[in-house]
Amino acid sequence: MNAQLNPLQQQAQTLSESVTTPIPGSTKIYLEGSRPDLRVPMREIALSPTPKLFGEDVNHPFAVYDTSGPYTDGAVSIDLLKGLPAVRAAWIAERGDTEVLPGLSSAFGRTREADPALDGVRFAHRLPPRRALAGGNVSQMHYARRGIITPEMEYIAIRENQRIDAITEAHLLRQHRGQNFGASIPARITPEFVRSEVARGRAVIPANINHPELEPMIIGRNFLTKVNANIGNSAVSSGIAEEVEKLVWSIRWGADTVMDLSTGKNIHETREWILRNSPVPIGTVPIYQALEKVDGRAEELTWDIFRDTLIEQAEQGVDYFTIHAGVLLRYVPLTAKRVTGIVSRGGSIMAKWCLAHHKENFLYTHFEEICEIMKAYDVSFSLGDGLRPGSIADANDEAQFGELETLGELTQIAWKHDVQTIIEGPGHVPMHLIKENMDKQLRECGEAPFYTLGPLTTDIAPGYDHITSAIGAAMIGWYGTAMLCYVTPKEHLGLPNKQDVREGLMAYKIAAHAADLAKGHPGAQARDNALSKARFEFRWEDQFNLGLDPERAREYHDETMPKQAHKVAHFCSMCGPHFCSMKITQDVREYADRQEVEQGMAEKSKEFLAQGAEVYRPE
Amino acid sequence: MNAQLNPLQQQAQTLSESVTTPIPGSTKIYLEGSRPDLRVPMREIALSPTPKLFGEDVNHPFAVYDTSGPYTDGAVSIDLLKGLPAVRAAWIAERGDTEVLPGLSSAFGRTREADPALDGVRFAHRLPPRRALAGGNVSQMHYARRGIITPEMEYIAIRENQRIDAITEAHLLRQHRGQNFGASIPARITPEFVRSEVARGRAVIPANINHPELEPMIIGRNFLTKVNANIGNSAVSSGIAEEVEKLVWSIRWGADTVMDLSTGKNIHETREWILRNSPVPIGTVPIYQALEKVDGRAEELTWDIFRDTLIEQAEQGVDYFTIHAGVLLRYVPLTAKRVTGIVSRGGSIMAKWCLAHHKENFLYTHFEEICEIMKAYDVSFSLGDGLRPGSIADANDEAQFGELETLGELTQIAWKHDVQTIIEGPGHVPMHLIKENMDKQLRECGEAPFYTLGPLTTDIAPGYDHITSAIGAAMIGWYGTAMLCYVTPKEHLGLPNKQDVREGLMAYKIAAHAADLAKGHPGAQARDNALSKARFEFRWEDQFNLGLDPERAREYHDETMPKQAHKVAHFCSMCGPHFCSMKITQDVREYADRQEVEQGMAEKSKEFLAQGAEVYRPE
Repeated sequence: MNAQLNPLQQQAQTLSESVTTPIPGSTKIYLEGSRPDLRVPMREIALSPTPKLFGEDVNHPFAVYDTSGPYTDGAVSIDLLKGLPAVRAAWIAERGDTEVLPGLSSAFGRTREADPALDGVRFAHRLPPRRALAGGNVSQMHYARRGIITPEMEYIAIRENQRIDAITEAHLLRQHRGQNFGASIPARITPEFVRSEVARGRAVIPANINHPELEPMIIGRNFLTKVNANIGNSAVSSGIAEEVEKLVWSIRWGADTVMDLSTGKNIHETREWILRNSPVPIGTVPIYQALEKVDGRAEELTWDIFRDTLIEQAEQGVDYFTIHAGVLLRYVPLTAKRVTGIVSRGGSIMAKWCLAHHKENFLYTHFEEICEIMKAYDVSFSLGDGLRPGSIADANDEAQFGELETLGELTQIAWKHDVQTIIEGPGHVPMHLIKENMDKQLRECGEAPFYTLGPLTTDIAPGYDHITSAIGAAMIGWYGTAMLCYVTPKEHLGLPNKQDVREGLMAYKIAAHAADLAKGHPGAQARDNALSKARFEFRWEDQFNLGLDPERAREYHDETMPKQAHKVAHFCSMCGPHFCSMKITQDVREYADRQEVEQGMAEKSKEFLAQGAEVYRPE
Repeated sequence: MNAQLNPLQQQAQTLSESVTTPIPGSTKIYLEGSRPDLRVPMREIALSPTPKLFGEDVNHPFAVYDTSGPYTDGAVSIDLLKGLPAVRAAWIAERGDTEVLPGLSSAFGRTREADPALDGVRFAHRLPPRRALAGGNVSQMHYARRGIITPEMEYIAIRENQRIDAITEAHLLRQHRGQNFGASIPARITPEFVRSEVARGRAVIPANINHPELEPMIIGRNFLTKVNANIGNSAVSSGIAEEVEKLVWSIRWGADTVMDLSTGKNIHETREWILRNSPVPIGTVPIYQALEKVDGRAEELTWDIFRDTLIEQAEQGVDYFTIHAGVLLRYVPLTAKRVTGIVSRGGSIMAKWCLAHHKENFLYTHFEEICEIMKAYDVSFSLGDGLRPGSIADANDEAQFGELETLGELTQIAWKHDVQTIIEGPGHVPMHLIKENMDKQLRECGEAPFYTLGPLTTDIAPGYDHITSAIGAAMIGWYGTAMLCYVTPKEHLGLPNKQDVREGLMAYKIAAHAADLAKGHPGAQARDNALSKARFEFRWEDQFNLGLDPERAREYHDETMPKQAHKVAHFCSMCGPHFCSMKITQDVREYADRQEVEQGMAEKSKEFLAQGAEVYRPE
């Protein structure tokens, strides 16, 4: 059988086996919704009982939000050559508002499909594309505004609640009251709440009808803060199998969406492989591919080439498009005196085009036509910030904020068409200027979800920009950003490898969760409480498994205390077995109990004396 | 010669060679003060000229604050067996208020010195201890309050200004106006400003008279934010040579002070090796050693044992002591209902003692006697937060804030004795509760410098707590914390190795600098501007060398673009050579210039018309 597979297919088959390692200590579970084909995945972490020393407690299994898809389900057999099961296919079909097309609508797509030279790299099980019936609108926003609760919305409601109602232990639900800067987070997420948030544009469900493999998720300030990971090959690196592996690797570490930023050859084919194997929304920057089509000469871009690219990608199933429609001709000269000019690739492509033709950005002038395409497939806008600051010096300047105002104007147009929209944000911003970004975005864009890259809070740490930016990301997440675009340690220096993707994601899962805690998101603290309890009770395995990266935690513990016996030791490497801070708490608890008893007795005694010290009181 | 050295001495000699690698692209320079023996070290980074494409610029060498001591000075020969040169010795002696003692005053110190079994681990060149003349006070605060500007203060003023006045390029000095929450940061630091800040207790110069090797530095909210690194062996790990290596490694990566938290055997001897080879202030937690002296039985601790330990360490030259004098008996039961009880080692030792004796903490009842010892050697207080929260759940509770109030009361007593004082802070705190900590600390402790551990903003990422805590550290630094105690990736899991120390320090140098930027510290942005300019102009080597970790940055760049030619390439791995965002800025600049010229011409033409369009105007 293998003999018939080409090298890429062989790679994919090998990969199929390697990407299905379950996460240590966890089991995949599914919560069923109102219909049997609505099964929301979660990852359940098994916990051990509290040791006697700390008071014997059961510690029920703890379920966490799970982005990793079927890959971590031991019961599912993965074949990257075939793609994932199409969990949404029936929901899309039964709405009866779409048609299956006889073939691809884009000229470029048809050319690629007909080219025999691409047989070796083409994904074999391409689905026939689907499109809204003529003049129709299949966006989740359109349904929401007509009062329809889609299965996607119900799925999301279950997913966002993270099975919090199954938690019976009061101490796990104990949580600080948050500070949410005007967000409207309910105690429980209902399908109706999801619908209403999508209807008013405050949340987005990126869910192209040509991406039925998708496990629905939502982006909005009143939901859990999300994280995006960028992957993609470039002119100087990486192939298709490597990108698929990065995708699976990204979702394993918690990426809620993945952007494919490929710029090299075979972009079209790489994207197909990624989409067919992705349970998370995939975003792209279509202008990157359009630029490839004109051999990198930005001035030769045309609306027709771009339009064909949008349709090509929409029919593959891309869930959101970054569109730099806010880079207006008049803003371009405002960047001339910057320390780092225009650093967004899309932004500079459009700036170059505007200057070359001395005309307004064609993405802006054709914006309503773009909306027509978006609604026929339910592709969401991610309005790009082409003029975002590339250095601390350039933060919050006229160019950046001018563009943001235009993005606000475009949001209104998109919403007029019931097209879902998120807004991209910076970039490099010192801490004290971050909130101004958030406040202005909320004001200008009518609370459309903000999606920021970091921001990086200083420029002086190349090699550590996952950290410079996690600081800014946590803060802006707290202030209201709905999704954080990760930054890896390779930022500014090179292309991320697998380990960089993991490092970047961990930094951003931390930022997102810190933001949820600070906002007071219902139930957000339960995992912190469970982990801290495990830590305090020296349940080492539980501490590792409740963490964001069980493998790393175990590995680090092994370095100092390698023996398996140490995993159940009631001490740590800081103090050693001789003296232990944690153990003293037992003394403290006994003391406090005794004190309470004594106080109780003293009060009783006082009461007794006050009542005349009679042992037998007359009734 | 080597034949006479024991194994430790041989290790130290080998180490002497390995720890003196200069930092790439940098040269050690010294700025001379008002006297020839006042030479303030800085690290000067050589820069290359701007390539023609970007407009040809000179780019003068850039000088940065340097904590690395003589180790990175190619002109100094290092011998760990002898210790560093005593740069402050003359200053201390010439003040004429101290005496050289005939021998160690502490009983324990004398026992160790007399023990022939310790010959193999003892540092051979111990200095004779020095103490204030009877009844005297040799603290920098005492001098400051009498109007004396010490050489230490002048040294610090030069150091803090970071040679900013030598920067002539306007774009490097361009900086956002900060938000400093009531700090009083002057445009330039003068020796008189240093004196006044120390006098009012708002800043501390940790500088024991028995640590003449020290390069003076200051901790206070109106100065650059500082970073502390913890090292130290424990019952389960590491020897003397390893700890000295960690010290040198820490200061190489920017540690402003180092705490020796050793708990194993030979603590006394390890400390001596560290102090004699340390150009940065060394802090300790004396109760750790006192506990060793009573074989780990907290209830057997006595004031006499503790007092002898203070004197022992003060005469070795420890610059600041963490003293958990705020753990009062009445606060202890308040921790009983916590998720993680008491997690501070010092805090739990004192809690145990209090409970066992049902008496008030002896550090509290003997506090004025401790002050007498501190002022005889100029040891600074670091008032420990023994009841700091060990989990998000326990943040900002009654126990924590009760102790903080007591630390405020103790600060007033210390100040009455002219003893320098900093206050330790948490711990684990969600983002939205961080500012309350800072505000309360400033209020309760009269602006005495705050010194916080993180805080960690979530509990769910064991293995990544340098990041969970760098977020909190950056924020609390912005709000006013003067020094940030680093957290390494091994926190909660094991003892940090060299790489962990580097990771922890990088995360914290980022946090400290991000805080300085947000506070608007004068000149803080100059390095960001210089690096961003280098980045934008594809001066790769300059970008690496201006960064916090030039080696890591170069290594990462090498991974994608390994060739030396790539280090001068005018493109990066993101876009490749074909299309480059950065290059487009040149077009933008030309366009903006042309536009300006055209606008100028249009205005001239309008003016001309307005004046009647006469080519020759009558005068």
